[in-house]
Amino acid sequence: MDTMRWTDDGVLELLDQTRLPSEVVYIKCATHGEVAAAIKRLAVRGAPAIGAAAAFGLVLAGRRLKCLPEEEFIAGLRAAAAELAATRPTAVNLRWALERMTRRLETSGSRDPDALCAVLLAEARSLYGEDVAGNRKMGVYGQELIPAAARILTHCNAGALATAGYGTALGVIRAAREAGKGISVYAGETRPLLQGARLTAWEMLQENIPVTLITDNMAGYLMARGGVDLVLVGADRIAANGDVANKIGTYVLAVLAREHNLPFYVAAPVSTIDLSLASGQEIPIEEREPEEVTHLAGLPLAPGGVSVWNPAFDITPHRLVTAIITDWGIVRPPYVETLQELFETKKT
Amino acid sequence: MDTMRWTDDGVLELLDQTRLPSEVVYIKCATHGEVAAAIKRLAVRGAPAIGAAAAFGLVLAGRRLKCLPEEEFIAGLRAAAAELAATRPTAVNLRWALERMTRRLETSGSRDPDALCAVLLAEARSLYGEDVAGNRKMGVYGQELIPAAARILTHCNAGALATAGYGTALGVIRAAREAGKGISVYAGETRPLLQGARLTAWEMLQENIPVTLITDNMAGYLMARGGVDLVLVGADRIAANGDVANKIGTYVLAVLAREHNLPFYVAAPVSTIDLSLASGQEIPIEEREPEEVTHLAGLPLAPGGVSVWNPAFDITPHRLVTAIITDWGIVRPPYVETLQELFETKKT
Repeated sequence: MDTMRWTDDGVLELLDQTRLPSEVVYIKCATHGEVAAAIKRLAVRGAPAIGAAAAFGLVLAGRRLKCLPEEEFIAGLRAAAAELAATRPTAVNLRWALERMTRRLETSGSRDPDALCAVLLAEARSLYGEDVAGNRKMGVYGQELIPAAARILTHCNAGALATAGYGTALGVIRAAREAGKGISVYAGETRPLLQGARLTAWEMLQENIPVTLITDNMAGYLMARGGVDLVLVGADRIAANGDVANKIGTYVLAVLAREHNLPFYVAAPVSTIDLSLASGQEIPIEEREPEEVTHLAGLPLAPGGVSVWNPAFDITPHRLVTAIITDWGIVRPPYVETLQELFETKKT
Repeated sequence: MDTMRWTDDGVLELLDQTRLPSEVVYIKCATHGEVAAAIKRLAVRGAPAIGAAAAFGLVLAGRRLKCLPEEEFIAGLRAAAAELAATRPTAVNLRWALERMTRRLETSGSRDPDALCAVLLAEARSLYGEDVAGNRKMGVYGQELIPAAARILTHCNAGALATAGYGTALGVIRAAREAGKGISVYAGETRPLLQGARLTAWEMLQENIPVTLITDNMAGYLMARGGVDLVLVGADRIAANGDVANKIGTYVLAVLAREHNLPFYVAAPVSTIDLSLASGQEIPIEEREPEEVTHLAGLPLAPGGVSVWNPAFDITPHRLVTAIITDWGIVRPPYVETLQELFETKKT
């Protein structure tokens, strides 16, 4: 099932992940504003997927603006990119994708709106295609870390739905399965929005990978009983020192993994790594509406008027991360050196 | 609001906690079977409360059986006690209460069913009354551990609703408040059945104690940001070595508290302490229906056919417990000695 698709008549169709798994509905976005709204309300979510959606959003903006004079066209595109970038603050892939798109605009050599629109569409398409390819590479590298018959605990959804396809953490799981390892998965439901229950459990069932759903607070007892061999999650942003921002609750699993001497792996494309930030302290953490915690499908779960704290992400300090699996290879501590090296090696 | 009330016409009314906070409904129980069913489906929950409810349940059984010959009357009561005891395996207060009731039966000196029924009712009433008194004592002892302006994280509901009144962990919080300490509370929502969101948040709002609701997986990030001063929870059973069985997720909070150098306190009446078990490994852990995790008010939260693991409790090892607050005083490590001493001191 496609996370998103670009149609021949120039519309971006986004799989509405808020309605999964009960309903499979695609939202048609004809403007970048519609894409921004879909990202904000998490119809499309997952760091790589929102990067790709924003790239196509910029294509939609270009198509609307192309009747304008060149300068206004470029200014309009920059405004649209800023609007798309502002939808969610934590995942860096969003900004990475938009910067890549606007850089392509600058290096294209053309000033003709029509030509630039074609350039933007081509760039969005390659970005999208590269994401799937990157996930497959991550799978190839990462699956070597997975023992045969491993019981893997994952959190939120770092799967095909969080990306252009295949997935980051779930991509590694798919690759381990393809390599013939009889793995099984525990999916933490991931309150408040239940991406683990709704999306990860669904992806695993579709692949016939054995999956057991637990509430987030069961992870400790599961580990204490020896039920898990490793933890494997995705990431929304990784700082230069290896600190990892990911879905709220990830930090708890990292502390628990250390307590039980289990490896804690993070799978993320290099576009998730933000070398401009020295540590996780500098990563902005999005706080979302109280209603995500107090209500479920309109149903109240708590007394009216209660205060709520609803951070969407947390920071896992690098000392708790056993290894980071990227599309360029596996990185191990000390991350402040190895992440730098990763980028330098690629440049040369 | 009463957790339960015994009416003049011999009916036990139980506040249906599954419907709180949206609806305040009392279930009328005329038989011990109805009480057992109410305990099973968590209409009444919390270790001390189910103990008291079961005691009244035995009174109802006695009233139904009293036309029988003495021997059949006693045998019927024993069968009813066994049925009530079998409803939930983890909390020991249930068995403790039933054993106290049947012991009272043996020591009453009477063999007359009518007289024995009166004895049983009197015993259930004192058990109920002693629970509230015990909670108040726990509050007096426990509140000395609470710094002024402390920000307290609690889990599940160890409040008035979990007891005959006042509460264990929330009783200590109430006592700290009554002592003029400007405390505030973080309530973990406590999936799957949301006792923290539905019951603890509600109790705290009713008392005007500042309360902030979080999902269970936010506790780690909250502590990492320095938002909590201590953790305070109830218990369902405490082994002789100080290992604590309590609502699933408690162990996670204990590991996190240790990681962040925060005190982790358990408040429970001595009826929760089971010296017959050497360690928490021997405490039976109830596993409940998958639907509690996959559905909420009939609404599916996960794809059909997914496997679920749903333990209702976990074990927190004694090494993570800073102190146990009981109605007989505060107990500190080494628990294997101090818990024994607690009981010996009381006997003398």
